[in-house]
Amino acid sequence: MTLRVAVAGLGTVGAGVVDVLRRNADLVSARSGRLIEVTDVSARDRHKDRGVDVSGCRWHDDPVEMARSADVDVVVELIGGADGPAKAVCETAIGAGRHVVTANKALLAAHGAGLAAQAEGAGVNLAWEAAVAGGIPVIKTLREGLAGNRISGVHGILNGTCNFILTEMRDTGRGFDEVLEEAQRLGYAEADPTFDVDGIDAAHKLALLTSLAFGVEISADEMPVEGIRHVSSTDIEYAEEFGYRIKLLGIARRTPDGIEQRVHPAMVPVTAPIARIDGVTNAVVLDGDAIGSTALVGPGAGAGPTASAVVADLVDVATRRNALTFGIPAEHLQRLERADPERHYGASYLRLMVIDRPGVFAAVARVLGEHGISIESVVQRGRDPQEVVPVVMITHDTDEGSMKRAIAAIERIEEVVEPARMIRIESL
Amino acid sequence: MTLRVAVAGLGTVGAGVVDVLRRNADLVSARSGRLIEVTDVSARDRHKDRGVDVSGCRWHDDPVEMARSADVDVVVELIGGADGPAKAVCETAIGAGRHVVTANKALLAAHGAGLAAQAEGAGVNLAWEAAVAGGIPVIKTLREGLAGNRISGVHGILNGTCNFILTEMRDTGRGFDEVLEEAQRLGYAEADPTFDVDGIDAAHKLALLTSLAFGVEISADEMPVEGIRHVSSTDIEYAEEFGYRIKLLGIARRTPDGIEQRVHPAMVPVTAPIARIDGVTNAVVLDGDAIGSTALVGPGAGAGPTASAVVADLVDVATRRNALTFGIPAEHLQRLERADPERHYGASYLRLMVIDRPGVFAAVARVLGEHGISIESVVQRGRDPQEVVPVVMITHDTDEGSMKRAIAAIERIEEVVEPARMIRIESL
Repeated sequence: MTLRVAVAGLGTVGAGVVDVLRRNADLVSARSGRLIEVTDVSARDRHKDRGVDVSGCRWHDDPVEMARSADVDVVVELIGGADGPAKAVCETAIGAGRHVVTANKALLAAHGAGLAAQAEGAGVNLAWEAAVAGGIPVIKTLREGLAGNRISGVHGILNGTCNFILTEMRDTGRGFDEVLEEAQRLGYAEADPTFDVDGIDAAHKLALLTSLAFGVEISADEMPVEGIRHVSSTDIEYAEEFGYRIKLLGIARRTPDGIEQRVHPAMVPVTAPIARIDGVTNAVVLDGDAIGSTALVGPGAGAGPTASAVVADLVDVATRRNALTFGIPAEHLQRLERADPERHYGASYLRLMVIDRPGVFAAVARVLGEHGISIESVVQRGRDPQEVVPVVMITHDTDEGSMKRAIAAIERIEEVVEPARMIRIESL
Repeated sequence: MTLRVAVAGLGTVGAGVVDVLRRNADLVSARSGRLIEVTDVSARDRHKDRGVDVSGCRWHDDPVEMARSADVDVVVELIGGADGPAKAVCETAIGAGRHVVTANKALLAAHGAGLAAQAEGAGVNLAWEAAVAGGIPVIKTLREGLAGNRISGVHGILNGTCNFILTEMRDTGRGFDEVLEEAQRLGYAEADPTFDVDGIDAAHKLALLTSLAFGVEISADEMPVEGIRHVSSTDIEYAEEFGYRIKLLGIARRTPDGIEQRVHPAMVPVTAPIARIDGVTNAVVLDGDAIGSTALVGPGAGAGPTASAVVADLVDVATRRNALTFGIPAEHLQRLERADPERHYGASYLRLMVIDRPGVFAAVARVLGEHGISIESVVQRGRDPQEVVPVVMITHDTDEGSMKRAIAAIERIEEVVEPARMIRIESL
């Protein structure tokens, strides 16, 4: 009756899964009604010290061969990457009638619907709680806990690295590059931080949450995505002055024009609960017609939280709690009809660097007026004739298309010497 | 293949369940793989307008007869009350091999283990997501989402009525009685508010969460419970001055001496996330060895959120996601070994009303010193010789037994003219 598990990939999360299953074996078996045991493992280096003893497990040099031939019930895929061995492991395991548990958001963002259809055909679970915000059981909550709700929106802080960097920049006044280096030293950011700081990781997660929330196909490719590289300490200071904090948000909303889906730095009121989520913590807010709004807050990554999510999926398999990968049969996922991003309507923060000459602000205000954009407040601290000074504005709500055209026109004004910095304001 | 549901009790939640199942029938059936339909209903008054049309359902005057004889798969018990018809409906339904979904915390707090054992014997679900913090899927999260974790603590704001009252008192400076009246007018408090404001409702919920979190029997009876009736606007003002907010908390923790379990008003640092949970919102924080800490925030009550929880349980039944009522087999629930409340160790806020005479504070300080209690800070605003003035202190950490004995001794000092007000400080 033991649930036999093969683990492909023994990094910190894989080692964490082995560790949690052993350490809490009594509890996990009481909750599952049976033992859950890692019987087979595969990784690159057989002799590396991983802090857990896997000498009692069958070793496989080739994870795909393991997925095909190991005498197990479930394969846990922790290799990573959207293609290559990770994809082959999942396809092979499902093809062999084994359940799959994965933490691989890139794989699911690229191939989730196909893999889900394959799993449904084979009658096995393809479970992925660990792929989004490990320490927050948001997948189970959306898929099961809110199953009675028509979801109208999902938004949140989905990338701990970016939130750590923005929090540190605010708390210490330091610039992006310096804080990124610290994050890398602390292990919160990769040597190549692109995936995190350019918003790609958050976009993958948002694409998956969107699919589950709205019953639509996964589509990360055409999503408007901006990262945090160009958020400056100046902007963070002005944000505080206007009563906002800057957070990298992922936002998906059902609108009359289709589904709005975007990842970008946003200013949120300091009084909004999400403004208080600091450091590597993640937060997800789910809006539904019956429930109103519910928020989940917790660690987004790390060996323990991610292992916890993998083990929860294993307990579901062990207790035969079946669940469709994206909440409804994969073949019924609808095409994602995307709302035109240019029609997004909201207020903005706008920072211009201008040569301090009489009439410059009037010229800027005229352009904004011509595009139907009205100004809620302006700050120009100090004067420095003939030098470059910042002019900072908060606009009233306007559509994004007008804003973009106005910015292009403003940047053509002679005294405007740097690209304008625009940050959307989200009232949430 | 339709899942046939009988609803016993058609108050706002019952009507909400009928409404949500109809309104979102397309989604619910896509997520369940089958229709979920309310076929039978029972309530006191057949002719009352409930805002939903139940004329197509079979009507039963007697809910127990319905639970026994109706040709349904699930009975939803929304009658309320720890005994009487609610208990009879659940026992009868389970006895007849039907699944039961209930929102009844009082019933479960009194008879949960017995009902769970009966349900397990009959091979049916006894599901109760709606019984605790309706808009927060905390039961599923604890039971399934954190199934890999050894839970070390659960705490939170479990009663929306009390949190609304405390929030309003803080925001407006008004007293308890006046705000309670407003809460009653707004429908946030019952005509007889005892259950809420004396902490009984929060204690029932905490007893259930404790059972699920630690695998122990439900025991609300010996739990130390204090409500919010004696929290004064004076204490709320002093709390702000010291950097705290007052919240009614339910706290359950595993300690070396057993399980600590208590409900009382507590001062939490204004910087703590839980200090920001205002109004009728609930919040639950779960601490586990793998996950660290994860928090869920949402509406605690109301027709929509509670109906959402009931429907989620129905979708679990429809998809044959079985789950043990308290996470492990009822017969394996261990006796709750309660930590001695007197050994609770922490800081306290202490407010004394004293006649302003020389030497009074020295006498108070001497008594505290004799009981090994040291003072972190003291505030005595203004002087008014021979009149009654407040003396307010924050103590360093001490055990609760010493604190109680010190308070008894302090109250024997002639100049101390009212019972001392002690509020525990929780750093969380």
